[in-house]
Amino acid sequence: MVKTMKILILGGDGFCGWPTALYLSHNHKVAIVDSFIRRQWDIELGTNSLTPITSMSDRIRAAWRYGKEIEFFYGDITSYEFIYGCFVQFNPDVVVHFAEQRSAPYSMIDRKHAVFTQTNNLVGTLNVLYAIRATDCKCHLVKLGTMGEYGTPNIDIEEGFIEVNHNGRKDLLPYPKQAGSFYHLSKVHDSHNIMFACRVWGIKATDLNQGVVYGVTTDETNLHPELINRYDYDEVFGTVLNRFCLQAVLGYPLTVYGKGGQTRGFINLRDTVRCIELACLNPPNNGEYRVFNQFTEQFSVLQLAEMVKQAAEDFGGEVRIEHIANPRVESEQHYYNAKHIMLEELGLVPHLLSDTILTSVMAVAMQYRDNAKTKVIAPRVNWR
Amino acid sequence: MVKTMKILILGGDGFCGWPTALYLSHNHKVAIVDSFIRRQWDIELGTNSLTPITSMSDRIRAAWRYGKEIEFFYGDITSYEFIYGCFVQFNPDVVVHFAEQRSAPYSMIDRKHAVFTQTNNLVGTLNVLYAIRATDCKCHLVKLGTMGEYGTPNIDIEEGFIEVNHNGRKDLLPYPKQAGSFYHLSKVHDSHNIMFACRVWGIKATDLNQGVVYGVTTDETNLHPELINRYDYDEVFGTVLNRFCLQAVLGYPLTVYGKGGQTRGFINLRDTVRCIELACLNPPNNGEYRVFNQFTEQFSVLQLAEMVKQAAEDFGGEVRIEHIANPRVESEQHYYNAKHIMLEELGLVPHLLSDTILTSVMAVAMQYRDNAKTKVIAPRVNWR
Repeated sequence: MVKTMKILILGGDGFCGWPTALYLSHNHKVAIVDSFIRRQWDIELGTNSLTPITSMSDRIRAAWRYGKEIEFFYGDITSYEFIYGCFVQFNPDVVVHFAEQRSAPYSMIDRKHAVFTQTNNLVGTLNVLYAIRATDCKCHLVKLGTMGEYGTPNIDIEEGFIEVNHNGRKDLLPYPKQAGSFYHLSKVHDSHNIMFACRVWGIKATDLNQGVVYGVTTDETNLHPELINRYDYDEVFGTVLNRFCLQAVLGYPLTVYGKGGQTRGFINLRDTVRCIELACLNPPNNGEYRVFNQFTEQFSVLQLAEMVKQAAEDFGGEVRIEHIANPRVESEQHYYNAKHIMLEELGLVPHLLSDTILTSVMAVAMQYRDNAKTKVIAPRVNWR
Repeated sequence: MVKTMKILILGGDGFCGWPTALYLSHNHKVAIVDSFIRRQWDIELGTNSLTPITSMSDRIRAAWRYGKEIEFFYGDITSYEFIYGCFVQFNPDVVVHFAEQRSAPYSMIDRKHAVFTQTNNLVGTLNVLYAIRATDCKCHLVKLGTMGEYGTPNIDIEEGFIEVNHNGRKDLLPYPKQAGSFYHLSKVHDSHNIMFACRVWGIKATDLNQGVVYGVTTDETNLHPELINRYDYDEVFGTVLNRFCLQAVLGYPLTVYGKGGQTRGFINLRDTVRCIELACLNPPNNGEYRVFNQFTEQFSVLQLAEMVKQAAEDFGGEVRIEHIANPRVESEQHYYNAKHIMLEELGLVPHLLSDTILTSVMAVAMQYRDNAKTKVIAPRVNWR
């Protein structure tokens, strides 16, 4: 029997937040906090979700029919008065914090977007930390970080901390961070702030360094068309595998940035929602700051392109891989070996990347291909 | 012959900024940027500089009489339009960036002060990075960091980077950061942002992880009473040694926080100004991010109290050391061994802490003791 908790989900209207809220609402009392700024960014960038997402009120009404009661607080967590009010009213056992600007290219558009990303993400997280403190540090913070905080060091990546032996002495230290965009840096900054708040105030926090998420649907979002999740495919918010799937369906070349040797950790959306629940059900001790690397497999970008090409061709499509100039500044061939043990020890049974997954994502892409704005796929935001 | 450079000093009205501007104006073309927010914080906190500092216009007029021409730009670097304008107008070879909220207790007053400190410091530094980029990355950034970024690890502290051997592989990585206040964390965040900007845009930057600065005067500030430097002694902006000197002069107990085994790096103000010049004269390569630990000796707080007590008693004073409850969350007994080689290799000849220095600081404290607001010395800001 799963323990029932009160879980407040910040950013519960987003790509990971919405399926997480739906998944958790089966066994837990769930409330969503969102300002809909993610939908605003679509308007700013002239893009959209490939899938026709519905309004929050329609989402919540549809969920209700399946016995999933979800509360909703409309507002922006950069307002402390607002988020503190949510804590007082809902009194959560856990707060799951997705409510950040989460696109690297968005943060690199120009100075204003860099400043916005860092101040928005830092202030939101500081407000959450102060709200937890103001409510006696009872609430467990589950914070979404990113594997991108580590960069691509020439040694194995550990989960948050590394034992360093130096001049005959040793210490367990925070793993050195070498992030690759102002967005990824904002998560590095958050991690340092949260670690400090745990140490000084006795807050308990789980920092989930998540890999690149692929997939669109979960058992819950499949229950009803009005529960559908977003599908981002544009250069700014679309992530690599989902973008490749749409490109394959449209008969466009799969655009690999540079050599494609860039290797990253990846995770299926179905595992994301389960990881969040595992973190909630197994809180750290008071004052403990812990880090889980939340991904299940690592691939290079070129490997993924080849897998998508193969899966598409199995269905009779013809797909070409095109190497284009890399708009990012990053190593295109490098060592990469990142640990991901903790969540599997807590019980995660990974859904690994397979032809089935790829074809199911491509099926969604096929169904909604007419919604694609093809102009927003090619990269325009340049790091340099 | 010292090479003449154009040096823009952000925060040139402050405790380190003003003596640095005066010192550099002898051989270089100097302009100061300041918003006077530091003077505003005195008003907010009901405190003052023990020494009667004069207005910027009086300072600049007085400097002029000694052949020191200093330009001044009034404004706040959190406005990009303003700081970009300064770059275009002055066209600096080097920008020395002191313009941050630099007090740990100030950042810990409450949520608003934490958020202010981090957003103010990050946005200012991001704007400076973008202004350097907008002017073709020609300008060398000399940025004031702090030794407090490292915290107190159980291994030797290196200058910015550490070679880590792990599972049979090795890499030179950014030294792990464990800062002890939202202020110190803001410097950690800056360091990560600057390192990224160097890598991606080819900016050259020197991050000076400065220790605790003591002393008040330099040869230049001594030239004329209107050139006098500030002397902070309050719990929020006063640093430990200068505060002890005033306490000794007033016949108050020297208030040591907790056991007093807290060990830190210290530097004489006369060395600070020289270190800045050495960094300016020896720029890194394009795209290089380097870190110098800018201090000359390490002491525990209790050692300093005992030295001040001894120096004061040599002059017939009677001084008591009082251990009071530590308002901070920090180790009071710990290993501490921090490297400081780079600046000495560039030519720094340290002015070490001696009785002479202590008595000269106490002489300043004695001269202006009637200006002391004694209510602001005892700690009220608590980390918990």
